[in-house]
Amino acid sequence: MINFRNDYCGVCHPKVLEALCEKSKNVYVGYGLDTETNEATLKIKKLINNDNANVYFTVGGTSTNKIVIAHALKSYGAAIACDTGHINVHETGAIEATGHKVLTYPNCNGKLTKEGIEVIMNSHPDFHMVKPGIVYISNSTETGTVYTKQELIELSETCKKYNLYFYIDGARLGCALTSKVCDYTISEMAALCDAFYIGGTKNGLILGEALVVINEKLNDEIRYAIKCHGGMYAKGFVNGIMFNRLFTDNLFFDIAKKENELAETLYNELKQLGVEFLAEQETNQIFPIFNTNIIEQLTKEIDCEIWNSDKDKTTVRFVTSFLSSTEDVVNAINIIKKLL
Amino acid sequence: MINFRNDYCGVCHPKVLEALCEKSKNVYVGYGLDTETNEATLKIKKLINNDNANVYFTVGGTSTNKIVIAHALKSYGAAIACDTGHINVHETGAIEATGHKVLTYPNCNGKLTKEGIEVIMNSHPDFHMVKPGIVYISNSTETGTVYTKQELIELSETCKKYNLYFYIDGARLGCALTSKVCDYTISEMAALCDAFYIGGTKNGLILGEALVVINEKLNDEIRYAIKCHGGMYAKGFVNGIMFNRLFTDNLFFDIAKKENELAETLYNELKQLGVEFLAEQETNQIFPIFNTNIIEQLTKEIDCEIWNSDKDKTTVRFVTSFLSSTEDVVNAINIIKKLL
Amino acid sequence: MINFRNDYCGVCHPKVLEALCEKSKNVYVGYGLDTETNEATLKIKKLINNDNANVYFTVGGTSTNKIVIAHALKSYGAAIACDTGHINVHETGAIEATGHKVLTYPNCNGKLTKEGIEVIMNSHPDFHMVKPGIVYISNSTETGTVYTKQELIELSETCKKYNLYFYIDGARLGCALTSKVCDYTISEMAALCDAFYIGGTKNGLILGEALVVINEKLNDEIRYAIKCHGGMYAKGFVNGIMFNRLFTDNLFFDIAKKENELAETLYNELKQLGVEFLAEQETNQIFPIFNTNIIEQLTKEIDCEIWNSDKDKTTVRFVTSFLSSTEDVVNAINIIKKLL
Amino acid sequence: MINFRNDYCGVCHPKVLEALCEKSKNVYVGYGLDTETNEATLKIKKLINNDNANVYFTVGGTSTNKIVIAHALKSYGAAIACDTGHINVHETGAIEATGHKVLTYPNCNGKLTKEGIEVIMNSHPDFHMVKPGIVYISNSTETGTVYTKQELIELSETCKKYNLYFYIDGARLGCALTSKVCDYTISEMAALCDAFYIGGTKNGLILGEALVVINEKLNDEIRYAIKCHGGMYAKGFVNGIMFNRLFTDNLFFDIAKKENELAETLYNELKQLGVEFLAEQETNQIFPIFNTNIIEQLTKEIDCEIWNSDKDKTTVRFVTSFLSSTEDVVNAINIIKKLL
Repeated sequence: MINFRNDYCGVCHPKVLEALCEKSKNVYVGYGLDTETNEATLKIKKLINNDNANVYFTVGGTSTNKIVIAHALKSYGAAIACDTGHINVHETGAIEATGHKVLTYPNCNGKLTKEGIEVIMNSHPDFHMVKPGIVYISNSTETGTVYTKQELIELSETCKKYNLYFYIDGARLGCALTSKVCDYTISEMAALCDAFYIGGTKNGLILGEALVVINEKLNDEIRYAIKCHGGMYAKGFVNGIMFNRLFTDNLFFDIAKKENELAETLYNELKQLGVEFLAEQETNQIFPIFNTNIIEQLTKEIDCEIWNSDKDKTTVRFVTSFLSSTEDVVNAINIIKKLL
Repeated sequence: MINFRNDYCGVCHPKVLEALCEKSKNVYVGYGLDTETNEATLKIKKLINNDNANVYFTVGGTSTNKIVIAHALKSYGAAIACDTGHINVHETGAIEATGHKVLTYPNCNGKLTKEGIEVIMNSHPDFHMVKPGIVYISNSTETGTVYTKQELIELSETCKKYNLYFYIDGARLGCALTSKVCDYTISEMAALCDAFYIGGTKNGLILGEALVVINEKLNDEIRYAIKCHGGMYAKGFVNGIMFNRLFTDNLFFDIAKKENELAETLYNELKQLGVEFLAEQETNQIFPIFNTNIIEQLTKEIDCEIWNSDKDKTTVRFVTSFLSSTEDVVNAINIIKKLL
Repeated sequence: MINFRNDYCGVCHPKVLEALCEKSKNVYVGYGLDTETNEATLKIKKLINNDNANVYFTVGGTSTNKIVIAHALKSYGAAIACDTGHINVHETGAIEATGHKVLTYPNCNGKLTKEGIEVIMNSHPDFHMVKPGIVYISNSTETGTVYTKQELIELSETCKKYNLYFYIDGARLGCALTSKVCDYTISEMAALCDAFYIGGTKNGLILGEALVVINEKLNDEIRYAIKCHGGMYAKGFVNGIMFNRLFTDNLFFDIAKKENELAETLYNELKQLGVEFLAEQETNQIFPIFNTNIIEQLTKEIDCEIWNSDKDKTTVRFVTSFLSSTEDVVNAINIIKKLL
Repeated sequence: MINFRNDYCGVCHPKVLEALCEKSKNVYVGYGLDTETNEATLKIKKLINNDNANVYFTVGGTSTNKIVIAHALKSYGAAIACDTGHINVHETGAIEATGHKVLTYPNCNGKLTKEGIEVIMNSHPDFHMVKPGIVYISNSTETGTVYTKQELIELSETCKKYNLYFYIDGARLGCALTSKVCDYTISEMAALCDAFYIGGTKNGLILGEALVVINEKLNDEIRYAIKCHGGMYAKGFVNGIMFNRLFTDNLFFDIAKKENELAETLYNELKQLGVEFLAEQETNQIFPIFNTNIIEQLTKEIDCEIWNSDKDKTTVRFVTSFLSSTEDVVNAINIIKKLL
């Protein structure tokens, strides 16, 4: 069985595991106050070229989103996201469970637009409605697309205009930054937002996300919010060791880049076989559309998610991971070739 | 520097790391629906001799407490704990952040008593006050003590009398169960409560707790609560692998037992040197009382937590961990001997 | 200045005030446990022909919605409403502040449809998403329309099919039930839902809503929820006196019917003058569309809400209240005639 | 039956009702943006001698407490109160339902002490615990006592020292300010705190509290919090009319003063009969202690609350209200005389 189901399907990248093994006899202080966390923090601050940023290593994406949004908002505050935003759909109401509404606008190719923010702000004029306080996007998006620099600049400026925090969920930030369509560095992106997180769980780690806080107003007392909302990791040094390794020798980017390249090959080869796609390939998620009558057989040999389906056509999602290989891609193409 | 600061000071037990390394090339499905999680679940169910129990592996203690309590209560419901209870003091209001009051009663040797529940129930008669719905204890307690079987039976019966769920936070359950003062098995304890969790983070794992739900009313839809309250672990199979190993060859109990024995030796030796203690040793936490004037030097050589302090006397907490050794104990005794 | 801004623009109906004055020397027990509340309750139970229903008098619509929805749902539960639903737009996130998501579907003439519920249920299959638990509608709707009996039956059956509570916000229930298009009695409506409230604030009272709970599962312990969510009224007997009077001599329906009739006259006369409307008149809210260039003058003489506006056309909302008179309607027509 | 059960036992003071009747034909804008509200606001601002204060009229005490505390705190913030504080005991977890812990310290004669704040602040040093952000007291207290000027100054200074908001629940503020033991004016009290509310419900109104915000940081966007937490009153002008009347011709103080005087007479007379009290009389609540064997008969003739009881002695609470008369007091004394 070839696995294209998701990018969190294996324990962790061998080099990260190696680092954990090497340091497994050491004793560390808890709660992220250790030397490894400190080193990882310095590497990330250097990478984004910002000495004043603060970095916190948390246990997962959903709790990181809860932390940032709950920390940014007053009790009647709301987050703005596009309709397909992870916080709006796939977090079982985790944001609302902190007391806050998620206001949505239809996505454009998986993305929130400047127009979306404008429309929402203009229709929320007074105290009978929630007060939008933070804009949420994910990059890459739920459908694998990547924001362009121009789009990020527009969102950033719109946020400033309306006094909104701008927060980027980077669960798959590695794949966004190493996409062939990406026209900015992590440091340029960091300069445009108030906070973002660098996903570890979907980029080769056992778990963990690195929350980077740029705006010092958001930084104040945020450790309280991390603990209160269940994102504090007692063995924070494990995140420290893993992120320290991830940001050594370009590993973070290498993992993501390879995933993107495998997805690109798969996309191009399938395209040549006449397969249509829901969208163009930009990162490690692609969405081929097949005749529904081959899906049963296909999913016996390739593990993947059914994105949507009717009696004629079925769209599936293929995701490459740090465990994916060229061989997987070649085998998948052969399997599909036979089924078409 | 000898480390007696806490029991979450190292990556994980070598045998657990070995298991992770062995299985690091495998591909798994996410969210705890994998074969390793399944095996670990079966082992725990067998251990507690209850086929109808359900087991969920979560990311940490605070979020597990949030999940169970929020799942058990209606919006106006409250949890009962003793004043020193972890949820009352050391979780940054995580329970209140889910909307629920924690009602407290003074502890007796670190424990909640039957009388405490009775007093609280009798003083909460109507809708002008919260409605208590769940009793929370930790075993071993915050001060290292262990509930006796008789105490658990009394608490269990009192909960039944008042229609309260009975929930046990087992962050250090291993040390409780392997304590020389413990007069019950995990299966006997499980039969007395509605839910409990088996702590992994403080018992040799990288992270993770095993939430065991005995009462099927609490079980219904609990995966939604796990996700909503930030306790869902995408790479659930990592917990699966670790707990599977922990419950193979008695490793869970061996780790805890060794910690208890080291703490006991340390306690006995210091006692012989004339050191007084806040309480008798029952598990891996001991609380020696020293003259305040030696603390500065002592903490240069032994890393530990200051429990409380005045100008004459200072109580410190020594905690043994899976990384602690007989050598650590011997060295600590020698260091202290010189300082007395 | 003619007032068509809203239906909560005066202290209260003279007959209600009379009742308050008559009973202003009496002493009552608090929190709705008094004789007046009891009498009002019996009258409502008789009106809906249901001895097993329970009635609670609360302070306002938003808090009543909070109470019912928070009481109906588990922590990860969600409410379903149409996009224009009051809870979704005009309650400043009050529902989300209790921890719950509001899932929406585009309205059809101001109403939630059976199809809306079906689509939402089918797209929320598992624990990665919220679990819908209650359906919310308002009757009459935000745009003054009234659900038909067939529509209510379909919604009710769909709720049963998916195990959802069905809750009706009756802030303007009087106007719905006395609408010329309404084809059911309050008793028939009550039999189709699990809970509803009868609006007092917008039907001639100083304040207050009567929450009627049909489904006994929802009834259990609801007084706790009323207090916890800020809807408990210390002087509950004031609500008792007012609702007792409102349900004596058909006053509740008379007030509403007169409002509807005035709105109908205004609608018909304006229609004859060639004015277009956003929708047909069904209750006490009508939405005429004027040339934008007359709006400034119009609103100097008629107080009303601007519903939406562009440079050519402006829709306004005219609402009749218990204070409105035939004279108001005649004067308004004359004013508008001159401006057209 | 003589009524000493509570001070919210009648519709409202005749002069307030008169004002409502006089203005019952008028049309007003909603949500507290009307002329009556404006006049009442100006009178209160003049009374406290502070042009920069802001006044908001809300529906009840519990929701007002929710609003202020939720508005003052970040998600992990906590309120400090004494153990008998209304928010801690008698609001069914309303504060916790907004996500916030209430930290308590044993009361001293019904009051929170400076020492209480100090102890709590010193035991909450870091992010593993909640962060106290606001101090809550009620004046008069739950047991009818009144803070002295010196006590308020100490609390105020302690709040400033620790960067805590200082908030006073004035459900019975009238009785506090007109107590013979009160050594300050409302304007002096206002200058010592960040916000307080003037209770209307327990001081002769149908409902309503006047929230006075002194600290402009707390004022910002508070209307959103009022709506979100269910305290917004659509017919805000009713509160406007009532408070406008209450602060005309000293009515607010006259009502409270008379209640205090009746309580004082009752207290003195009973004292002369040899009755003991739980505390000295300061306001309109007194707590006589009787032999338990007379309670059954006593409560047949005098409606009052049982405060606590054992087989020998029973403490009851007598509360005088705006409906109480000298005759009630005389009759009560005669009834008790016969029973002693």
